[in-house]
Amino acid sequence: MALSDLTTDELTRLESQLASEYDALAAKGLKLDLTRGKPSPEQLDLSERLLSLPGEGDHTSGGTDVRNYGGGAGLPELRAIFAELLGVDADRVLAQDNASLSIMYDLLTFSMLFGTPDSERPWKDEPQLRWLCPVPGYDRHFGITEALGIEMIPVPMGPNGPDMDEVERLVAEDPSIKGMWCVPIFSNPTGAVYDDHTVSRLARMVTAAPDFRVIWDNAYVVHTLTNDFPKVPDVDTVAAEAGHPNRFLQVCSTSKITFAGAGVSFLSSSKANLDWYLGHTGVRSIGPNKVNQLAHARFFGDADGVREHMLRHRESVAPKFETANAVLTSRLDEYGIASWAMPEGGYFIDLEVVDGTATETVRLAKEVGVALTPAGSAYPYGNDPDDRHIRLAPTLPPLAEVEAAMDVVALCALLAACRAAG
Amino acid sequence: MALSDLTTDELTRLESQLASEYDALAAKGLKLDLTRGKPSPEQLDLSERLLSLPGEGDHTSGGTDVRNYGGGAGLPELRAIFAELLGVDADRVLAQDNASLSIMYDLLTFSMLFGTPDSERPWKDEPQLRWLCPVPGYDRHFGITEALGIEMIPVPMGPNGPDMDEVERLVAEDPSIKGMWCVPIFSNPTGAVYDDHTVSRLARMVTAAPDFRVIWDNAYVVHTLTNDFPKVPDVDTVAAEAGHPNRFLQVCSTSKITFAGAGVSFLSSSKANLDWYLGHTGVRSIGPNKVNQLAHARFFGDADGVREHMLRHRESVAPKFETANAVLTSRLDEYGIASWAMPEGGYFIDLEVVDGTATETVRLAKEVGVALTPAGSAYPYGNDPDDRHIRLAPTLPPLAEVEAAMDVVALCALLAACRAAG
Repeated sequence: MALSDLTTDELTRLESQLASEYDALAAKGLKLDLTRGKPSPEQLDLSERLLSLPGEGDHTSGGTDVRNYGGGAGLPELRAIFAELLGVDADRVLAQDNASLSIMYDLLTFSMLFGTPDSERPWKDEPQLRWLCPVPGYDRHFGITEALGIEMIPVPMGPNGPDMDEVERLVAEDPSIKGMWCVPIFSNPTGAVYDDHTVSRLARMVTAAPDFRVIWDNAYVVHTLTNDFPKVPDVDTVAAEAGHPNRFLQVCSTSKITFAGAGVSFLSSSKANLDWYLGHTGVRSIGPNKVNQLAHARFFGDADGVREHMLRHRESVAPKFETANAVLTSRLDEYGIASWAMPEGGYFIDLEVVDGTATETVRLAKEVGVALTPAGSAYPYGNDPDDRHIRLAPTLPPLAEVEAAMDVVALCALLAACRAAG
Repeated sequence: MALSDLTTDELTRLESQLASEYDALAAKGLKLDLTRGKPSPEQLDLSERLLSLPGEGDHTSGGTDVRNYGGGAGLPELRAIFAELLGVDADRVLAQDNASLSIMYDLLTFSMLFGTPDSERPWKDEPQLRWLCPVPGYDRHFGITEALGIEMIPVPMGPNGPDMDEVERLVAEDPSIKGMWCVPIFSNPTGAVYDDHTVSRLARMVTAAPDFRVIWDNAYVVHTLTNDFPKVPDVDTVAAEAGHPNRFLQVCSTSKITFAGAGVSFLSSSKANLDWYLGHTGVRSIGPNKVNQLAHARFFGDADGVREHMLRHRESVAPKFETANAVLTSRLDEYGIASWAMPEGGYFIDLEVVDGTATETVRLAKEVGVALTPAGSAYPYGNDPDDRHIRLAPTLPPLAEVEAAMDVVALCALLAACRAAG
């Protein structure tokens, strides 16, 4: 029976039961962690062979000695593999170092200090800078824009992408809105996938800022939880056809394919944008780590090698999501106090609880030894105005711990909902 | 006999001889390159074992799984090795990714966007920014300050460091001078080593800017051409004792120890500076590539392992410098038209030719197939006011090519000098 249909007595009785269960949990001394989207040791073991690659004697690729300086665009052999996965030409993909987050940071700092190819002046010289943030979204994205003093404007995410009516309205009228964060496939944290109509509207929309940029963070492009891989929209072609060839800056990395923080990253965009990026990053560095790039090329072999590898990840990760979903369903479904979408890929479940109880749910869980991302962390400035969203990351702990932790989360959400209703 | 002592007839005869020799060279179709300070394949082979490290099954260090996210300060095991080489505490050294150039770039962009711990405001909001550049110096240093719109002021380098009277005078009176590039050991390109007195004056000097910074690029700290290693000045202690604890930002990397562009880099400074750097770089990245850091720790073992490795580099590199020196001496010494210091370490020889003939010497060499760094490249904005300095990089080509190339350089310098005198 839904919580809202309970009588006051029934509610009191339920809360009392839950409180007892909660107190019993406290005695268990749990130490569980669902905070960060980190791969598990079992997932990392899938790439163990990479620790010996490229291997002694194997240090050339296409005539380039990867042990020496140069090649700012990255190793063509590796670029070709990820170009296929992103559905773009290989000369429109750069292979860089270990973090797409760093590429995104540099894209914004270069824009701040020098302006983009379409800017009238460096962004630092603009009177005001604003940025659209689909919410809930990725806290590290918001960390970058916040650090740079760019005012963040939340826009609601739906199942097929952000509220495009709102996006179009905002960008059309405000020239200080310089860009937007997007995670188009298996979005962090809701798992939503942008549909073609959304992509088309993003490409076509008229922006008051001539140098409006979409940071297209395709972090989970091959991170499926099913047997299929998602269709990858060709944003560059769509944008070029719409007359906005420089709009999208697409990034991805192998942090959740091979090793987290020790993989390789990629940037794909128009030639003008890539030339601009290379011009600035060429002052910062003589080139990326090509040894690690060759190791990755050898490890994968080709794009199908990446896909096969990701299906092995799926074998490890999917049961954790299924268990999480099963626990949440069995404990919460009848009460109608929470909702979540079971994602078909990515690293997160976005649990929506009763308005005003997310912070309390996280606090309750923490008290009994289950660490969750702070409520609000999926919002700019950590501010979820409805105090409703909790980002759950089930990949890192072993399956049994995921089950135990989700049980605690469900209990805490329900207890908080009872108390809020009482 | 010195060129200046020749009669007009003798000069004409010499020039005619040299011109014949030069024309004969043109027919040879040489293709030699002394442009960049790159390690040779023979040197890179010394680190070949690193291509299989850390190796399958070896992925933890001090309880940390290097395959997963985190650890922005870098792997303590590796930090300890380079702390010993730099003569500082391990907690005062961060291990980062593959390029100290990138650390330096970030140090300056963070200062631009946010200011240093001692800044009144972000540097971008200062009315004017200036920077001291000992000359001749490193072109990629100058590239960073130029890109950021920081006006570069050249200061002459001597055999024991920059002209400190001039440095002290400039920094005392001009608050827009925010810092200075220094390569303290085996300086690029003269090979000069800063003496203790210079270090002490740099640490003690009173600067009009409260946030004055010395970027202390110890790129060649263990890159000896002799059997000894240079003494490493403890700049942090000296600066702290002088009341300027945050003055020095020291960097180095293994680009010329293991693999160029695929090694590891280090930043050492005061705790306040390191905390400031980590605060900003923590927005840019979840942490450096710890797999590569572990590979390097395994490869070296300890600080002595680095030293032994560098003596093997010396075996490969020193004969090239000796040959270069011998060719220059035998071809040029008697004419008194050029000078150079035979360095005891590092990667370069700074050849000083007759004023006004460096550009012509480089042009002549290029015409017969010997590529040299453009004259002036060791100066801010590429402007050597005396057109005197040519940076020679003898490490990359095989010994026989170094000999052939230096012979061409000497011939061209002498030919240009004759023509200038004629």
